[in-house]
Amino acid sequence: VAAKLDTSPPRGMRDILPDEVELRDATAAAILDVYRRYGFRRVETPALEDIRLLTRSEGGENEKLIFKVLKRGEKLAHAEMVRIDDLVDLGLRFDLTVPLARYYAENHAKLPQPLKSLQIGPVWRAERPQKGRYRQFTQCDIDILGVESAHAEVELILATLDALLTVGLTGLRVRLNDRRVLGALARHCGFAGERVGQVFVTLDKLDKIGVAGVRDELRGDGHPEAAVARMIDVLERLEREGPALEHVRALLGPDPDGVHGALHTIVRAVTAEARGRYTIEVDLSLVRGMGYYTGPIFEVAHSGYTSSIAGGGRYDRMIGKLLGREVPACGFSIGFERLIEILKERRGPRDGGERRIAVLVDGQDDIATLVALARELREQGQIVSLEPKRKNLGRQLEELATHGYGSYAVLRAPGALDVRPLARRTGKEEARS
Amino acid sequence: VAAKLDTSPPRGMRDILPDEVELRDATAAAILDVYRRYGFRRVETPALEDIRLLTRSEGGENEKLIFKVLKRGEKLAHAEMVRIDDLVDLGLRFDLTVPLARYYAENHAKLPQPLKSLQIGPVWRAERPQKGRYRQFTQCDIDILGVESAHAEVELILATLDALLTVGLTGLRVRLNDRRVLGALARHCGFAGERVGQVFVTLDKLDKIGVAGVRDELRGDGHPEAAVARMIDVLERLEREGPALEHVRALLGPDPDGVHGALHTIVRAVTAEARGRYTIEVDLSLVRGMGYYTGPIFEVAHSGYTSSIAGGGRYDRMIGKLLGREVPACGFSIGFERLIEILKERRGPRDGGERRIAVLVDGQDDIATLVALARELREQGQIVSLEPKRKNLGRQLEELATHGYGSYAVLRAPGALDVRPLARRTGKEEARS
Repeated sequence: VAAKLDTSPPRGMRDILPDEVELRDATAAAILDVYRRYGFRRVETPALEDIRLLTRSEGGENEKLIFKVLKRGEKLAHAEMVRIDDLVDLGLRFDLTVPLARYYAENHAKLPQPLKSLQIGPVWRAERPQKGRYRQFTQCDIDILGVESAHAEVELILATLDALLTVGLTGLRVRLNDRRVLGALARHCGFAGERVGQVFVTLDKLDKIGVAGVRDELRGDGHPEAAVARMIDVLERLEREGPALEHVRALLGPDPDGVHGALHTIVRAVTAEARGRYTIEVDLSLVRGMGYYTGPIFEVAHSGYTSSIAGGGRYDRMIGKLLGREVPACGFSIGFERLIEILKERRGPRDGGERRIAVLVDGQDDIATLVALARELREQGQIVSLEPKRKNLGRQLEELATHGYGSYAVLRAPGALDVRPLARRTGKEEARS
Repeated sequence: VAAKLDTSPPRGMRDILPDEVELRDATAAAILDVYRRYGFRRVETPALEDIRLLTRSEGGENEKLIFKVLKRGEKLAHAEMVRIDDLVDLGLRFDLTVPLARYYAENHAKLPQPLKSLQIGPVWRAERPQKGRYRQFTQCDIDILGVESAHAEVELILATLDALLTVGLTGLRVRLNDRRVLGALARHCGFAGERVGQVFVTLDKLDKIGVAGVRDELRGDGHPEAAVARMIDVLERLEREGPALEHVRALLGPDPDGVHGALHTIVRAVTAEARGRYTIEVDLSLVRGMGYYTGPIFEVAHSGYTSSIAGGGRYDRMIGKLLGREVPACGFSIGFERLIEILKERRGPRDGGERRIAVLVDGQDDIATLVALARELREQGQIVSLEPKRKNLGRQLEELATHGYGSYAVLRAPGALDVRPLARRTGKEEARS
């Protein structure tokens, strides 16, 4: 037996203990159950994708964070050794949207039209590790591919609110905007068309740097002084008067694309279902990071928090780039890791413990007899585990209670178990142990 | 819009369509439910591990099949460019056992003792793609870490049989052997101690190449002629008389390690629970591929098939190499992909279709009204999806039936849906479409 080696997981990645896995599994099951009732169906793609697909997508910053996989065998031997990139043919996916677009382009003839897809699974980004941010993390996305009408956005938003309510979140607020409105706003202020994307990136920071910070950054980037002044004027008015659907109409003028109508439909249908459980309002300061959005964009925040727990939008031009014909599309993604952090903080005494029984096995006991008795308890709906009986029984019983056992049993007479309750521990005590 | 690009998944990997995902999810849920009732708890490790951990394990051939991940940023810039291996720091896991050993070594102080772990997840091997073999595939493992007694093997085997019965397999047969018996057999025949591993590799092929094939390969490898003759004699006797526990006792002699007793306990306890649903017998020709096994090894086959659907064994020395002290361990792994192939062949008409309703949305319909009516149907337990109504309604209704909808609905009066049944399609028709 050698000395203990470094057995930590790779930097920025995690081992997940059974208690947390159970919380994650129960949360995922509850969310998936809600989404399935809205007609979403789970699809699966490989964790690896062709590196060319990943680097030609519009994943923005995320493309720089790809874990790249080395070619293998012959392929590697024949690689030109000039550039590192020649050694690589695959990469781990950095989101679930780019793989979904490829999946749809490849399989559309066999898929329902429209496709209401549900995905849950890990993605990988080589970000600098920090508290609450991991290099492997779970995303939970729903997407509707093939629907132009705003009823797609309505379903995405209602299903996600329903899912978040089901797992216990409260004080849910939906912020809604539209990339076309942002475009009109930027044009109205007088920014150059080809620099609008850069203006969006700065606007996206409004929450963090405030109106003054936005002004400084726009100026620093060399935009026309008059355009910056007009934009700051709009932002200050929004801050004073609150974000409102009416501003959109004023801003857009004739509105040939029906942007105002779409936003109105979304706000009206979501509000009609709210019954005091959530709110939705147009917020012209919402931008979102990804480059591929083309229409409505939306986020959900909860209770006191300003950062969002879910975000999404319409991306009508992404699939066309792979398939060769346009397919309207929109999606909504729950930040699963953040959700779990919130639920962990709230977690009360553990459930189900009272149904778990440890059958203690003595070296002299007949295994066939114990196995039969354990089976009978399982048939009554109990969770039953055979555990070797230790010399220090008191310590063992404490540990069993800590790990969620509600009772233990020993063989008393041939063919009979003596089942006794264990003192109950709360989830909090467990976390400390 | 550009021309259609190659959108196939990476070589040897798969996109999974919604129908198959549903079968996979239902099968996994049924298996996990059984395992949980035996007290197994799910644990999770990252998909990536340190490349040094993966290449120093006893994964045999699998180590050659690792997908290796390139270092990133600064780390890559500072890598010595002499050897390809210097460019790599991580690899995708090729099984769930090596990561579990690391997980236990890292987290044992916070884990239940013993740990009854349950894992289900993808693993990656860069094997030459062939029918039914994929480069990303799902494994489903249970392991008991910290139990020396054979009751651990009994629980692994009973829980796995229970899981396989639950998903509908029949004619289940467990084959049982022990690496220590194989060692005694090889020594008894007169093979050199350091070449016993090579003899096992040849014996492992008995099913495929027969007794004559084994003789030829042992001779070709240059083992002593007398040893080969004795081994062939034993194999022929086993073929004639059937594999039997009594042979083990004769072979082992005094048996200081209690090998015979352990095998006897396993056979007796499993047989006592069988009630005609499965059989278990000692089979001295069972070898299994991995180098790390130290005690009992076992496989399950079903109905007419000779190839196994699950396999496992005891590996008492693997964790010690990481932790610095010995921890007894054994595990059992279900070949999830093979199981799904079997279940797909058997699948009858789809379930649940009659509960799915498509609400057809006309461009003129009020979305808020439709959303409210859909919610009422969901509250009655239905799965309800809003779908844009197409011009060719007949074709649309056919497609909806093909994709598992049992009925459709349209808005007739303000505030009322007209729900109508769709002709039912079987799973087979669906597969053909």
